[in-house]
Amino acid sequence: MISGAVALVIIFVILWVGLPLIGPALLAALWIGTGELARMFARRDVPLNLAFLRVGGLLVLIASTPQLQAYNPGVPWREVALGVSLLAAFIYELFAGANIPRLAFSMLSFLYLPWTLGYFLLLRYAPDAHLGIVTLSLPLVATFATDVGAYFVGRTFGRHKLAPTVSPNKTIEGFIGGLVSAFLALFLYTWLIQGAFPFGHGELLVFAALLSFAAQLGDLTESMLKRYCGVKDSGQFLPGHGGLLDRLDSLIFSVPLTYYLLVIFT
Amino acid sequence: MISGAVALVIIFVILWVGLPLIGPALLAALWIGTGELARMFARRDVPLNLAFLRVGGLLVLIASTPQLQAYNPGVPWREVALGVSLLAAFIYELFAGANIPRLAFSMLSFLYLPWTLGYFLLLRYAPDAHLGIVTLSLPLVATFATDVGAYFVGRTFGRHKLAPTVSPNKTIEGFIGGLVSAFLALFLYTWLIQGAFPFGHGELLVFAALLSFAAQLGDLTESMLKRYCGVKDSGQFLPGHGGLLDRLDSLIFSVPLTYYLLVIFT
Repeated sequence: MISGAVALVIIFVILWVGLPLIGPALLAALWIGTGELARMFARRDVPLNLAFLRVGGLLVLIASTPQLQAYNPGVPWREVALGVSLLAAFIYELFAGANIPRLAFSMLSFLYLPWTLGYFLLLRYAPDAHLGIVTLSLPLVATFATDVGAYFVGRTFGRHKLAPTVSPNKTIEGFIGGLVSAFLALFLYTWLIQGAFPFGHGELLVFAALLSFAAQLGDLTESMLKRYCGVKDSGQFLPGHGGLLDRLDSLIFSVPLTYYLLVIFT
Repeated sequence: MISGAVALVIIFVILWVGLPLIGPALLAALWIGTGELARMFARRDVPLNLAFLRVGGLLVLIASTPQLQAYNPGVPWREVALGVSLLAAFIYELFAGANIPRLAFSMLSFLYLPWTLGYFLLLRYAPDAHLGIVTLSLPLVATFATDVGAYFVGRTFGRHKLAPTVSPNKTIEGFIGGLVSAFLALFLYTWLIQGAFPFGHGELLVFAALLSFAAQLGDLTESMLKRYCGVKDSGQFLPGHGGLLDRLDSLIFSVPLTYYLLVIFT
């Protein structure tokens, strides 16, 4: 309870202050998360190009800052960051090993973490620095509600397995419980912060369903990667709470989706 | 000679007409190129998710059309196409096999071909539908001149190996010959089409060097992938001329780079 309350306060302060705190937090997540991925895949004897993931990830984060996004909106800065990073990764393999599995798994890892982390920053400043506090909080609320709802509904009513080969404890009932819980939480939350959510009730239903769907897919995807690597936790970020990726797995999918929905439909 | 002249006329007509011809040409390149990649990697017993590469690639091409780019410039359509494709690829593995090497090599292949093909379309319409004929022709000229220059200079003066483990016939002398040849060709070409190239002579030198550098790296990268798969040609697109990827390898790197340079520096 206490550690949960402390985490909530920390997240709120980081959200509120914006770039001066979110920037370092994302850099730390980039550093720790890519380290966890490298140690996970090392168990399958697959090396990762950590310099590519970290320096390239830094470029993606810089490209996602509101300053650069506003500096020349005609330039797809994130695509440039991705392109330069890819070129560097190819050059590295050309002159240092030609290890194609390392290249392939590094590309997967790059799209999985560094690329998606940038959306946390984009969403904090979309549509603007003030409302971004709310928009970035939407996937946080939806994801948290999904986790809680899926856990309790799954434990109480769970009968039918959702994805038995990947995560044997997940059930279809829990999945639906997560969807319903996310909708109720977002309904309550957007009622509390009236005016900040730019859609109506019908749209909120679709929005909550998509976010909860993405959050649960993010959770399953990380389970799939961990199962492939033969680990139960992605690391030891918080003693007793697994690795950092275990905390971020749902958000990695739901935050980019929120950003896409926001820029397309408003 | 005759087949070269015919190819030149075909390329010119496709360039001139724009989307109604470039669109189908890129779709064909997507279809054939991803097929070649799948057959290449199959020789190393690595399957690719062809549906992800082809349907996702189609989304990237649609996102790169001038119509969608102009429809709502605030939406990063290509990122949305990439994000939706990634989500679909993860879902596919969650419920059909959890084959992580297939996922990783499919991501590498996606960034290598479908993602880069979209830049051919973007560049054809940057800065506009008229001048785009010229801007897209710049990497074509630079790449062709690089190939010719590197071949003849390398054959005549080549002594020092460039990347012996990847492509034993390439030399540093040939590499430099390619750079010089690209500069001379672009110098002549931009003099012929005065006014269309938006930079001065000093910038042209840097531009030619970067494009030639990218073209030769693209060539080496494809050699590296072919060597990993144990093939000499990527396929049999043109009898006696290898596969389609053997023709496109340099452009895959030089066309996106031209687009980045154009949108950043003009």
